[in-house]
Amino acid sequence: MKYEFNLAELCPATFAFHVISGKWNLPILAFLSEGEPIRYNELKRRLPGITGTTLTNCLKDLIDNGIIHREQYNEVPPRVEYSLTPSGKELVPLIEDIVAWGANNIHVLSERKG
Amino acid sequence: MKYEFNLAELCPATFAFHVISGKWNLPILAFLSEGEPIRYNELKRRLPGITGTTLTNCLKDLIDNGIIHREQYNEVPPRVEYSLTPSGKELVPLIEDIVAWGANNIHVLSERKG
Repeated sequence: MKYEFNLAELCPATFAFHVISGKWNLPILAFLSEGEPIRYNELKRRLPGITGTTLTNCLKDLIDNGIIHREQYNEVPPRVEYSLTPSGKELVPLIEDIVAWGANNIHVLSERKG
Repeated sequence: MKYEFNLAELCPATFAFHVISGKWNLPILAFLSEGEPIRYNELKRRLPGITGTTLTNCLKDLIDNGIIHREQYNEVPPRVEYSLTPSGKELVPLIEDIVAWGANNIHVLSERKG
């Protein structure tokens, strides 16, 4: 397969790479791919090292790209939950394949540093 | 599938996410997944916007993680080519799936910005 893309222009490859790359996107998508809607604080707790601003920006970017959905329940205090959209759910098997690749290849690291 | 990982610790998920994420890693891996070894300048040409330093660092990181191989031919001038290792080659179908996901879901963007 020959790839022709320019990262400055939007095309399927650059769109997909944008969604998948970024230090926190895959971990956020991995947690959401577990199937249950997740609240902001729960996501933040499970992502040690992420700042509130970064998490908010990542979630906004994923919402803008149609990958995740934000639901606000008008309760006191208000409850906000995040979940995958249909496009986001199509990423679930990909994320599982990526983690499976990690499990099959992590040995390479120790062999190189052997 | 339930994900338990801490990004500060090395585990299959964090190893895989590290290799896949980062603005330039996927594009670099996509070009190398075309099958032919590629020279540094050719990679740089095909990645408009990347600096020499960034490309060098990304390549070094991918080499350190056992994903790509660097071959130097002692000619005048010396020739250096990059190619995927066996672990890197296992990423090829994943990269194709990621791009295919992009092709299937890019419509979501225009619908949202309708």
